[in-house]
Amino acid sequence: MTNGADRLTQLERRLQLVEDQLAITQLLASYGPSVDAGDPDRTAQLWTEDGEYDVKGWHMRGRDDIRAMVSSAQHQGLVSGGCLHFLGSPYVQVDGDSAVAVCESMLVLHEEGQYRVARGGANRIHLRRTNDGWRMTSRTIRGLNGTQEGRELLAVDVPSS
Amino acid sequence: MTNGADRLTQLERRLQLVEDQLAITQLLASYGPSVDAGDPDRTAQLWTEDGEYDVKGWHMRGRDDIRAMVSSAQHQGLVSGGCLHFLGSPYVQVDGDSAVAVCESMLVLHEEGQYRVARGGANRIHLRRTNDGWRMTSRTIRGLNGTQEGRELLAVDVPSS
Amino acid sequence: MTNGADRLTQLERRLQLVEDQLAITQLLASYGPSVDAGDPDRTAQLWTEDGEYDVKGWHMRGRDDIRAMVSSAQHQGLVSGGCLHFLGSPYVQVDGDSAVAVCESMLVLHEEGQYRVARGGANRIHLRRTNDGWRMTSRTIRGLNGTQEGRELLAVDVPSS
Repeated sequence: MTNGADRLTQLERRLQLVEDQLAITQLLASYGPSVDAGDPDRTAQLWTEDGEYDVKGWHMRGRDDIRAMVSSAQHQGLVSGGCLHFLGSPYVQVDGDSAVAVCESMLVLHEEGQYRVARGGANRIHLRRTNDGWRMTSRTIRGLNGTQEGRELLAVDVPSS
Repeated sequence: MTNGADRLTQLERRLQLVEDQLAITQLLASYGPSVDAGDPDRTAQLWTEDGEYDVKGWHMRGRDDIRAMVSSAQHQGLVSGGCLHFLGSPYVQVDGDSAVAVCESMLVLHEEGQYRVARGGANRIHLRRTNDGWRMTSRTIRGLNGTQEGRELLAVDVPSS
Repeated sequence: MTNGADRLTQLERRLQLVEDQLAITQLLASYGPSVDAGDPDRTAQLWTEDGEYDVKGWHMRGRDDIRAMVSSAQHQGLVSGGCLHFLGSPYVQVDGDSAVAVCESMLVLHEEGQYRVARGGANRIHLRRTNDGWRMTSRTIRGLNGTQEGRELLAVDVPSS
């Protein structure tokens, strides 16, 4: 039954990779709903305790910083007007207990009865498997507004670190 | 071989969950194409026979109601001008034969040669496994326009009922 | 152990289908980042060597044509201003070594400090399993601007050829 045992082991390894990809996709799918509901705790829990979120001109370090961003008057102002942080399907590369995801995103704002695309961004996200499941260790977002730094984040053949 | 049999059983259970998540994602991915093609039957079949679709001010009950919505002059007017019902990646929680999905969505309209985001919405979708595969038993959508009811639909730590 | 062997074989078959669906979703998720980074080689590699890309009024045949499109002054102009080729979640049907995917897409442009949805499209994509993984053999995109040809691409109950 060596053959059967080998096939079992290989199936378990392949299924684990599929589960990891889906879990990461699910984690990222919950970002928009969490941040657009204006929920600081739920949003912060998508990162590791020391996870970083690097927005141009604002580098958050740790869950407290992310909670503070979601709780800020600026963000709550977007939420109370109506906003969608819309992430595209992520390109995910898993390497054992770490992973890298790349995706594009849009910020859609509701203002004066109209919706508009206020920002378009490139995202590079590093993740780690934790006891609570996959969490972001860092997310970097830059505007796709013609700057080189936005385009550089989009390179998809990256080693997962 | 108890060990091997246990591992087989566990693999089958894990794979079933993965297949369920993918099947639900696929079902939801077919909503936009079905409704933007203006196809009443295909759209209605995404729900169970008695499935509900609760749009603000309009509560459809059963496939006939959904068919009527897609066939309506209002909807066919959007289709003949050009429209995209764009759903974001859903956050899906499966619990046996039922599931809950949460996602954001945009309605993009083509009018007078221009595209614009006409609406942004929060969706909470309940699903059930049927003999024909997963189907929606209810979908509730509310505008992300600053109202509380939109934001409430976005809570992602929900028990799947 | 016939029973166990049968279950193993069935698990392998089911897992293969799941892996194929995910691989195709990943391939398509890398289109936006590749083309919005303005990378001709990476973009061309998403197609088979003789893969086709049929945009209204422009039928590209083979990777060289696709490389030329991405390298063109027109496309590089979009990239240097800032653009997002945003694909929705694809509806994917796998049949052995070939597959069909249907999805909607948006082109969002950054111009004069503002973002706008410049185009909305319907996509029908044929794919083939190659030694390098899944690749597009053809992609047809048409505007969802009220024309019949756009809507026709959205039919989702297609035989996978």
